[in-house]
Amino acid sequence: MTVQTRTVSYQHEGTALEGFLAWDDTQTSPRPAVIVSHAWAGRDEFPCDKARALAELGYVGFALDMYGNAAVGNSAEENSRLMGPFMADRSLLLGRITAALETVRRQPEADPESIAAIGFCFGGLCVLDLARSGADLRGVVSFHGLLNPPEPAPNARIRAKVLALHGWDDPMGTPDQVLAFTRELTEAGADWQLHAYGHTVHAFTNPRANDPAFGTVYKASADRRSWAAMRDFLQEVLD
Amino acid sequence: MTVQTRTVSYQHEGTALEGFLAWDDTQTSPRPAVIVSHAWAGRDEFPCDKARALAELGYVGFALDMYGNAAVGNSAEENSRLMGPFMADRSLLLGRITAALETVRRQPEADPESIAAIGFCFGGLCVLDLARSGADLRGVVSFHGLLNPPEPAPNARIRAKVLALHGWDDPMGTPDQVLAFTRELTEAGADWQLHAYGHTVHAFTNPRANDPAFGTVYKASADRRSWAAMRDFLQEVLD
Repeated sequence: MTVQTRTVSYQHEGTALEGFLAWDDTQTSPRPAVIVSHAWAGRDEFPCDKARALAELGYVGFALDMYGNAAVGNSAEENSRLMGPFMADRSLLLGRITAALETVRRQPEADPESIAAIGFCFGGLCVLDLARSGADLRGVVSFHGLLNPPEPAPNARIRAKVLALHGWDDPMGTPDQVLAFTRELTEAGADWQLHAYGHTVHAFTNPRANDPAFGTVYKASADRRSWAAMRDFLQEVLD
Repeated sequence: MTVQTRTVSYQHEGTALEGFLAWDDTQTSPRPAVIVSHAWAGRDEFPCDKARALAELGYVGFALDMYGNAAVGNSAEENSRLMGPFMADRSLLLGRITAALETVRRQPEADPESIAAIGFCFGGLCVLDLARSGADLRGVVSFHGLLNPPEPAPNARIRAKVLALHGWDDPMGTPDQVLAFTRELTEAGADWQLHAYGHTVHAFTNPRANDPAFGTVYKASADRRSWAAMRDFLQEVLD
């Protein structure tokens, strides 16, 4: 078994996007696919490595590109500048990730009826917004995603199952925000779960995160546990 | 592979207790053991079936007896009468479950250094109290356990890893109680996780639970997910 990869060019409203597809070359028929929505730094090695890891699990992994031309930030300032337009315009964000969903559906390696999406930090918010829109996919997994909903609220019935993996001490997702999130998902009829990890802050899956003052610190136990929870979840919703 | 079982007689402060041990007879050396703490009905078939299921996973399962002579209630009134003395005297409760921990350690099938405990409803509270006492075991898993701590608080450093599996709409564990629980465990230094399931109330693992007015309803998805989470957790802490 060898993981094969290729870049996938697609578009959204005139912006050229460059996704990264990974699959196991021993697969002989279309397989369930998992979109990977990157953090604020853009489609760097981290989401591509996750797409490869998903291919090793037997899925088709697709690391999307929110920013265009696979642009990547090299500092908090650059990341913030890249992410800003999407946080300011959640309908732009939704259109952009919906384009990724449509793109992965068209790939010959992917089963178009069996799609899930995972995301990290900003990417967690992106996959949650995809679910909030009522999109027809099997499930979404947010790893330390931002939880605040778009305004005005989409008021759609959430069809995708939702798994939110959350550091309980995350300054970007306080207990009050968690409570609001649980109310929102319950009212939207979502089949939702939230896993809270004690003594854990933001960005716990990122081995490079090491900024306690900013609230972003890698935590090996939460990284391992959240990945195991995702595996169980994907097995439930895709297989 | 065949699951073997036997009853184990033990004592606590003069009360005769009757546990139920299950193990895989192909095991050739002591194996990690998992205590099963029963719900308010007592050590009926439910915890014994869980002990058998744990044996099928390769552990030694031990369904403890909190009430004495394996007494079982046959109505909410009887269950309440059996459970009452332990809820009123949490030091009695702690002594009783500690006797079970000491007993399972002495069984030749069990590795005395590798013990965890799981519990359901009242039994969830029992295993949480065991962890709160600072007991030296690897981990505890509460399935829809009652979350309220003993008063006065034990103020021990929690050594066991804690996994709480919780129905978010459980009237016996409201969001406010969940928040208090997260604060308590964080202050006690516990390595804790809480998994919340939306649209899920108390007793979600019990196929006989069907009383929405009382807040106890079986839910297949939460039953399956919580068992999968327990398996991942036991693999982490015991293997």
